[in-house]
Amino acid sequence: MKLVVKDIDIEAGRFLIALLNQEDARKLDLHHGDRVKIKKGNKETVAFIDISTNPEKLGLGEIGFFEELLNEMKVKEGDVVDMVVAQKPQSVGCIRRKMEGRVLNYEDTKRVVEDIIGNKLSDVELTYFVASTYARGMSLEEITALTRAMIETGDKVELDTHPIMDKHCIGGVPGNRTTPLVVPILAAAGLTIPKTSSRAITSPSGTADTLEVLMTTNVTKDKMIKVVNKTNGCMVWGGGMINLSPADDRIVVIEHSLGIDAEGQMLASILAKKLSVSATDILIDIPVGRGAKVESKEKALHIKNSFEKIAKVFNVKTKVIITDGNQPIGNGIGPMLEAKDVLYVLMNDKRAPKDLEEKGIAMAGLLLEMGGKAAKGEGKKKALSILRSGEALAKFKEIAQSQGKAELDPEKLVEAEFKYEFRAEREGKVTRIDNKAISRVARIAGAPHNKKAGVMLHRKVGDVVLKNQPLFTIYSESATKLQYAYEEFERIDGFVVN
Amino acid sequence: MKLVVKDIDIEAGRFLIALLNQEDARKLDLHHGDRVKIKKGNKETVAFIDISTNPEKLGLGEIGFFEELLNEMKVKEGDVVDMVVAQKPQSVGCIRRKMEGRVLNYEDTKRVVEDIIGNKLSDVELTYFVASTYARGMSLEEITALTRAMIETGDKVELDTHPIMDKHCIGGVPGNRTTPLVVPILAAAGLTIPKTSSRAITSPSGTADTLEVLMTTNVTKDKMIKVVNKTNGCMVWGGGMINLSPADDRIVVIEHSLGIDAEGQMLASILAKKLSVSATDILIDIPVGRGAKVESKEKALHIKNSFEKIAKVFNVKTKVIITDGNQPIGNGIGPMLEAKDVLYVLMNDKRAPKDLEEKGIAMAGLLLEMGGKAAKGEGKKKALSILRSGEALAKFKEIAQSQGKAELDPEKLVEAEFKYEFRAEREGKVTRIDNKAISRVARIAGAPHNKKAGVMLHRKVGDVVLKNQPLFTIYSESATKLQYAYEEFERIDGFVVN
Repeated sequence: MKLVVKDIDIEAGRFLIALLNQEDARKLDLHHGDRVKIKKGNKETVAFIDISTNPEKLGLGEIGFFEELLNEMKVKEGDVVDMVVAQKPQSVGCIRRKMEGRVLNYEDTKRVVEDIIGNKLSDVELTYFVASTYARGMSLEEITALTRAMIETGDKVELDTHPIMDKHCIGGVPGNRTTPLVVPILAAAGLTIPKTSSRAITSPSGTADTLEVLMTTNVTKDKMIKVVNKTNGCMVWGGGMINLSPADDRIVVIEHSLGIDAEGQMLASILAKKLSVSATDILIDIPVGRGAKVESKEKALHIKNSFEKIAKVFNVKTKVIITDGNQPIGNGIGPMLEAKDVLYVLMNDKRAPKDLEEKGIAMAGLLLEMGGKAAKGEGKKKALSILRSGEALAKFKEIAQSQGKAELDPEKLVEAEFKYEFRAEREGKVTRIDNKAISRVARIAGAPHNKKAGVMLHRKVGDVVLKNQPLFTIYSESATKLQYAYEEFERIDGFVVN
Repeated sequence: MKLVVKDIDIEAGRFLIALLNQEDARKLDLHHGDRVKIKKGNKETVAFIDISTNPEKLGLGEIGFFEELLNEMKVKEGDVVDMVVAQKPQSVGCIRRKMEGRVLNYEDTKRVVEDIIGNKLSDVELTYFVASTYARGMSLEEITALTRAMIETGDKVELDTHPIMDKHCIGGVPGNRTTPLVVPILAAAGLTIPKTSSRAITSPSGTADTLEVLMTTNVTKDKMIKVVNKTNGCMVWGGGMINLSPADDRIVVIEHSLGIDAEGQMLASILAKKLSVSATDILIDIPVGRGAKVESKEKALHIKNSFEKIAKVFNVKTKVIITDGNQPIGNGIGPMLEAKDVLYVLMNDKRAPKDLEEKGIAMAGLLLEMGGKAAKGEGKKKALSILRSGEALAKFKEIAQSQGKAELDPEKLVEAEFKYEFRAEREGKVTRIDNKAISRVARIAGAPHNKKAGVMLHRKVGDVVLKNQPLFTIYSESATKLQYAYEEFERIDGFVVN
């Protein structure tokens, strides 16, 4: 069918979308969401169909191109294109088979992952994929295949050394910024740790968002390798110029719609990112607590067990620890507030949050033992001495300066100017600080988009407060956002004093 | 948040959608697909959010209303509305629990069904529901609960008589129009059969589409009851003024995206429609064959078994038959062509397709036996005698006239004017007529939207043809659609002569 292009002048978002007049759609029995192949000269692409019922907006014989499609096809208003019905990609058949309870092999899995990355699957189709792996579960072989597919479809960083250390904390606990402590301690001890982190999708800050306050994190692969070769470590964003396992973000968004976590996919995605940087020794932290991603010890043990099995398949040394995730770690929630906490710890400043320091030291200690830099049981002591001696801070500076744009003076990190301090309504003990509530309030205040926005906790669980003493402060760059964050907190109430 | 309404002047389709400026969305941490509550005066409603990144289209402090939302809220451009974040409906939690493998009770199920009907669930959420019942399966209790919920959320027709007969053919076989044969035969024999049928969703004609050619099918409940009281039967559309189990159509569309059939949902939906009209004796036909909804004997037996179990719970008498669904039934495919076949059978015309007549007689015979109007083994004979005597035709006329607008002269049913006759390229035997291919070609030709469009088969499987003899004809109301239907058939080839 020959059609004349009309520029719709709207961004469709992720997908390539073409708008058809209702009557033209009927001619090919096309419905909303069906696929068509559009050709002009030797350029061709597949787009999803949307139907216009308003002939004044789009007449017979016209095809509306949303911005992305216009760019993809390099055409302009008035050009004539040819359109035919397109079949669903093979990956849809793979998803159906998985829904039916059959097992996907590596080729099937890779097809699906490639089409997720290429935005070739509709949200409904992607949801079926997520649902199928969640409801049907994934065998060890399937998780292995998914891990391999995720590695294959993302960037790979090869380093010519051994061992290569890495770590990962499973999410849901705000403020849990151990990476900027662990990396410099390990690197200072002579271990290689090419650490990549992600940005927030549903949280007030990802490690990459926090690090971004202190240094350039979006670097090329060459730059990353250069930094590691020079300093033993790096702390970069794994979803930018280097892009590890890019299918992940899309899957997370679909999971978030229903609030589920498909374990097989989580395991594959974590491991894929580590294997993509050639890691040989990995420490996994599973914080368990209300509002954390993992809410029960039982589930944590199951994940630990699965993780150890898959790590064995890939021949990597793994240690999995289960930690307390019942409240935020550190005091600041939001990129800049967290960055400040990190600097205080590195500087051995008295304002350093003890829980964050302890967790960083504990994890660094275990990794020093795994990497052969400390005897069993001696890692923590060694990590602490590297921190106290200032070697960790010096190494952090070296890495930050190598990556670019180092900002390491906490006094220069000034919180957003609009703030509201919540105070205790009575004397008592803090019994609960809700991870999800604090995250939500920090996001509404502007984090992670506004780096200086977020929540600063003045008390943690177990602390005693007098009436009118400050509990926490919300920071925001706009009075309106502050107001909304305030109202949202009033509504959900996630800071309990009894 | 106070916002000024802007009329977007686009229909969003099913959902209520509000468009927000990117910056306003950030203020409340709102993302594409999130829900907000919109209030003006004492009118309030929940809408889904879409985000505009183009401040020229939608400025700060503005909220774009798509047509449906504008109508729902009864506001106009320039009005000020209040908007707050809305929680997901409880049904989303129910769907999550089902995804997690837990069992849904009646209340949970009803919540989900109500929210499907009210368009309160996004496509992603609805997909999770369909996927969860498909992958986790449904227990007898769950299917029972879903059946009850579907009955409760649809219209109910109460009739003060016994027995009340009903029938259902599971789909996928084009031309399978037994209802217009079975209903008049039963009604003529003195049995009550308040038959409702559906329109096509993915096929070239639903029974209601075919009947619509011959009579009014969209009637009120009162009218339906009046017709049944007068004539013993009716043949009406169950998705119009009477609306039985309205959740069904939406579920079917989502299933269609992946090409799956969730058995529990299918059973519940069939049974709910029958119980909604107070049926006491039901005949279920499961055609099995390539391209039919049920492709294997094994699956058919499983469905038969499940059906019998659930029917027992609801205390209805059921007979399930498994029939040949390897090719279309009758000769015409498409509303008018099928209607003509039906009239030929009722008129004992020599042009009547034998297979359609035989199937109608067999089903009517079984129902006559179930309803006590014929001894076991004698039903078919009695059904045939009612057909041959002209009683069936007379009853059909009576019902059609009671419903309204009866058109019973086949000579007045004139096929669409554009046609293309496919002829045999060689001598041989017809070995396969593909259900899906024929359906697709008939749809592209214009069916069911264009009543006169479709496919007329001149040969069926097993027939011998000489070279150049006609195999089938495509009818269409436009030369373009005919061309596309022709090209589509050339591409998929579903009529094999060997």
